[in-house]
Amino acid sequence: MTLGLPVADEIFAAAARIAGQATVTPVLRSRTLEAMTGCQLFLKGEHLQRSGAFKFRGSCNAVSALDPDTAARGVVTHSSGNHGAALALAARERGIPCHVVVPEGAIGAKLANIVRHGATLWRCAPTQEAREATCAEVAARSGASVIHPYEDRQVIAGQGTAALELLDQSGGLDLLVVPVGGGGLAAGSALALEAAGKGCRLLLAEPAGAADTAHALAHGEPPRDFVPDTVCDGLRARIGAPNLAVLRQAGAEVAVIDDQATLAAMRLAWQVLKQTIEPSSALAAVLARAPQLAGQRVGVIISGGNVDLEALPWRG
Amino acid sequence: MTLGLPVADEIFAAAARIAGQATVTPVLRSRTLEAMTGCQLFLKGEHLQRSGAFKFRGSCNAVSALDPDTAARGVVTHSSGNHGAALALAARERGIPCHVVVPEGAIGAKLANIVRHGATLWRCAPTQEAREATCAEVAARSGASVIHPYEDRQVIAGQGTAALELLDQSGGLDLLVVPVGGGGLAAGSALALEAAGKGCRLLLAEPAGAADTAHALAHGEPPRDFVPDTVCDGLRARIGAPNLAVLRQAGAEVAVIDDQATLAAMRLAWQVLKQTIEPSSALAAVLARAPQLAGQRVGVIISGGNVDLEALPWRG
Repeated sequence: MTLGLPVADEIFAAAARIAGQATVTPVLRSRTLEAMTGCQLFLKGEHLQRSGAFKFRGSCNAVSALDPDTAARGVVTHSSGNHGAALALAARERGIPCHVVVPEGAIGAKLANIVRHGATLWRCAPTQEAREATCAEVAARSGASVIHPYEDRQVIAGQGTAALELLDQSGGLDLLVVPVGGGGLAAGSALALEAAGKGCRLLLAEPAGAADTAHALAHGEPPRDFVPDTVCDGLRARIGAPNLAVLRQAGAEVAVIDDQATLAAMRLAWQVLKQTIEPSSALAAVLARAPQLAGQRVGVIISGGNVDLEALPWRG
Repeated sequence: MTLGLPVADEIFAAAARIAGQATVTPVLRSRTLEAMTGCQLFLKGEHLQRSGAFKFRGSCNAVSALDPDTAARGVVTHSSGNHGAALALAARERGIPCHVVVPEGAIGAKLANIVRHGATLWRCAPTQEAREATCAEVAARSGASVIHPYEDRQVIAGQGTAALELLDQSGGLDLLVVPVGGGGLAAGSALALEAAGKGCRLLLAEPAGAADTAHALAHGEPPRDFVPDTVCDGLRARIGAPNLAVLRQAGAEVAVIDDQATLAAMRLAWQVLKQTIEPSSALAAVLARAPQLAGQRVGVIISGGNVDLEALPWRG
């Protein structure tokens, strides 16, 4: 695991490292959503990223940055889904072993992706402590490097490349909206905006049932008790310490979004955009704030598309 | 209604007429589907077309081709969904009235699209006879021009523009696979391939429960009894007479696909491509024929994405 806070310039290094491996995902536009919101919307389709989520950017950057001897011993992580599949794919591309520790209760479609990309699965109890302990155990036994899903410096830098690309593809933005869970994408995006230096503001969208980042930014420290309860299975992690430091420094603002609004936005994306995206709060945040955003150029990172089609959240 | 068989050159005229109104839809690629099929796949995303289906091409061409006095009296059609919504949108863009006759049992999501685009709905019994009689009645009363969903010459020519675009975007194809119902897209595609003159073959994909085109091409005439029974709600129409004539002349081949294979392919598209597409048989036909297509450049028209999210066909 690479520690320490990444700095803005590392986003450029990450972009160069993952070029040719990560997909330059398309920016989706929609007359219907623009008519609804009154702003110019630039939706970065990271559900079309390899492995079905932006997570491949960070994993690919972290795996590519390992020296050959370290890489040969493999990588290990804990993940409820998307980071695990992304790391598995990045490891397979480099021809090295990958272990993924998965908490019970993870989404079937995401587990299937981890297995499909050739990683070894390790199950554990669904607590942060069990995840980290099992991960450390596998690392000790195998000699694999731990690639933390969001606190890793190279992972954060890799996730930031999505915002960098979107700024370029859109021709400039007034506001960028990204979801926040563990904070890899959020911190990476903050650094990308700083690196680009174009004055684009950052709005984090956080589920009401896992709003530890909003709490931490408002009160100076994370909440003591944190029991996430949200349909956004990719946003249930507690904000990482380095991630929070980056976000605080960037002066990021948080919109707290309830699950009902998130699901309505997700449904709208399926119906209007014809895109199979997973529940995440960024698009809902734009819809909620639309009256204040009239006429602005607003970017949104659509974070992933790994949904369990047997258990759509708007059905019982 | 514009009668007579369109000729190949009319596809170019249609392309010029709808330019700037219809979306030049993207061509989707997928490593996963290419690994599964062994061919190079170029998926034309007409679910991303305005109104959510390729049908806007034909409607837009037909409406644009009307002279101002005729146009001012409006248009009328019968449709179980996509053509109705497409015509409604094309009419609204030209600022003229639109009436749509809809058989009972049509998909809710498709009805909502028709209403959303401002057309007047007329309900009728779910038979071909009732559809045509109601449509003629509305036309007689209002003076509106009947724009038949697939037998209209300008509609056929408009639908052919999708194939023309795909040939250009893909850099050439060995085989083009399109679904066949009433035959507007099928006949238009046959004419587009003829117009392009690059020797690309045409494969029609038809649901086993509505395989009148396969029967007609094999036996010289359509089946006497035709009671469609397929999950592909957009492909339940009987093949049109002019459409059949074009397809016979083109020597088109038909792959008959059962609903189970269609649904498996649809699911795969949702999971792998992250695209919300409606059940149609073209992608399933490619998967079924994959062993014979190894190494070939295969185009597929993904025809539409208007799905009722409350009633996904792989759930009870």
